[in-house]
Amino acid sequence: MPELRKDPISDRWVVVATERGRRPSDFGGVEGTKMCAEAHVPTCPFCEGNEKKTPPEIVAYRQFGTAPDSPGWDVRVTANKFPALIAEGEIKRSGTGLFDMISGIGAHEVIIETPKHNLTLAEMELSQLDKVLWAYKQRIIDLEKDRRFRYILVFKNYGAAAGTSLDHPHSQLIATPITPRYVKLELTNARQYFQDKERCIFCDLMRQELDARARLVYENEYFVAFCPFASRFPFEIWIFPRSHQFSFQEIPDDQRMQLAGCLKDVLKRLKMLLNDPPFNYVLHTAPNPAPRPGRPGYWGTIEYDFHWHIEIIPRLTKMAGFEWGSGLYINPSPPEEAAKYLREVKV
Amino acid sequence: MPELRKDPISDRWVVVATERGRRPSDFGGVEGTKMCAEAHVPTCPFCEGNEKKTPPEIVAYRQFGTAPDSPGWDVRVTANKFPALIAEGEIKRSGTGLFDMISGIGAHEVIIETPKHNLTLAEMELSQLDKVLWAYKQRIIDLEKDRRFRYILVFKNYGAAAGTSLDHPHSQLIATPITPRYVKLELTNARQYFQDKERCIFCDLMRQELDARARLVYENEYFVAFCPFASRFPFEIWIFPRSHQFSFQEIPDDQRMQLAGCLKDVLKRLKMLLNDPPFNYVLHTAPNPAPRPGRPGYWGTIEYDFHWHIEIIPRLTKMAGFEWGSGLYINPSPPEEAAKYLREVKV
Repeated sequence: MPELRKDPISDRWVVVATERGRRPSDFGGVEGTKMCAEAHVPTCPFCEGNEKKTPPEIVAYRQFGTAPDSPGWDVRVTANKFPALIAEGEIKRSGTGLFDMISGIGAHEVIIETPKHNLTLAEMELSQLDKVLWAYKQRIIDLEKDRRFRYILVFKNYGAAAGTSLDHPHSQLIATPITPRYVKLELTNARQYFQDKERCIFCDLMRQELDARARLVYENEYFVAFCPFASRFPFEIWIFPRSHQFSFQEIPDDQRMQLAGCLKDVLKRLKMLLNDPPFNYVLHTAPNPAPRPGRPGYWGTIEYDFHWHIEIIPRLTKMAGFEWGSGLYINPSPPEEAAKYLREVKV
Repeated sequence: MPELRKDPISDRWVVVATERGRRPSDFGGVEGTKMCAEAHVPTCPFCEGNEKKTPPEIVAYRQFGTAPDSPGWDVRVTANKFPALIAEGEIKRSGTGLFDMISGIGAHEVIIETPKHNLTLAEMELSQLDKVLWAYKQRIIDLEKDRRFRYILVFKNYGAAAGTSLDHPHSQLIATPITPRYVKLELTNARQYFQDKERCIFCDLMRQELDARARLVYENEYFVAFCPFASRFPFEIWIFPRSHQFSFQEIPDDQRMQLAGCLKDVLKRLKMLLNDPPFNYVLHTAPNPAPRPGRPGYWGTIEYDFHWHIEIIPRLTKMAGFEWGSGLYINPSPPEEAAKYLREVKV
């Protein structure tokens, strides 16, 4: 019999098929990612040598002595050429009758993960992946200072079915003048839980997963990857830091390489098990320090109750009317089975 | 400049491009619905004459004297052969540590909208569409009596990209042992609004749209269709009854034909403007009467604060990491422009 399961972090119910779960091979029909196999593509704006085809570089991890917007970089961050939100201007809040509006101020950047057109996260050296994570951190630290922004969301679209339009490996970030709905929901629940129990709900959840072990995919000294109990999607994976870190920037530099190892491991398992599926991942970190009412210029509240994490969503199924209309997902693969398949992959 | 807009019903923020919105022709790249053009397909389980290929008929609008599960019907409802939830059994609630579970009890039915394989809602006679709406009502009234169910969601997937696997025109319904998240959110806000103002938020929203007129698509004596102010998707359309009706079952029979007219009109406009796009629609009606704590057997609370409506979502864009991770949608088409294009279609 199927089971309705509730995710304790987001309070989201999911219908999980608990018998006859779909096997990895049942998802063979998914349109592949069909990524370009060339290491260098002359027309690609993200390839080395084409730096003038992008907006100016914001930050880069580059060889000593090379100039910005020229070759010699390992990871490079630029503004998105077609931004969803605009960086210049003041935040204006307004309203008409029942409607609320905020001017579309924000930042929209691209993190080019490697100069090589065909080098995916699952295949790159750990030291390279570490530089990608370094770039995430640098940009969050920098953008967090902009008091117009409430949140910085780092995310990745891999494969056309996951919404990417450029093959060259890249992540994106969008800074928004509001805290996004899903993050707020997680934060609200975590805060309530802490007030009730003086414990972090994310830490408790991780402890329960480490005890149960049925949904674990990978663990190392500092990080744990598991298929969540109420997975919305087949083979969904979450990565948590073992110690309580509210924001991504809190990772000590010496732990970041372990995160690179964890991320690479699970992406490689997904790739090998599911024929290089399209996927999205998102980094949920704590919201930026918030303003205090009545104390303009004083920015106090830091969301210590939060516990940053990465959510990886392979795009194997299609959303249909029921999911759109209800917010209730139907997942044809029990996470216990998904985790078992993932653990069995020989990486 | 783009604009963040908040939907007053669901409190959902959306990033709306307000300049240079994408025109209808910009969505030409969407994979078409490619529906089968034959009026009768011998292998289709939903075609007339193939009634034995489906589970037994639950209800049908059929010619006098014809037997169930035989030809002679206009609209036919059967159980879904591959149900997401199982009809037989008791609701069992359980928990382990942080996790909550409910047994996957529910109903999953198919409403076959016509015996003709290629007759879409946008093309059928109003009297036929009225029978489809009649079937929705009959099934809701019947399933609502089952005290295990909290909600009955009617929805439609049109086209493979919208998640349908069978071309033959059909809708579905799923009865669930919980009230789905999105409905609960709308209800919570509507209830709060009513407590504050003693007015229905849906009625107020409709009044504002009828005053502004910029987002109106269609109206008749009893129904109004408009592109919502904070449309999540390009060319999203909502249909509201003008009078305050909390549940779909409340529509008087003589008004139902007007709803058929409204629904057909907007679906035809979408079809003509956007090259027969894939779409989903969902019917949001009030949750079933709820149990009262401490009064077993006494079912009291009826959600009068709700105001039923239909949400139509053309599937023209892809969800990517940002939307999955934030719950914040990016809509490249301002609803004011979408509504203008839709109004200009010669139906």
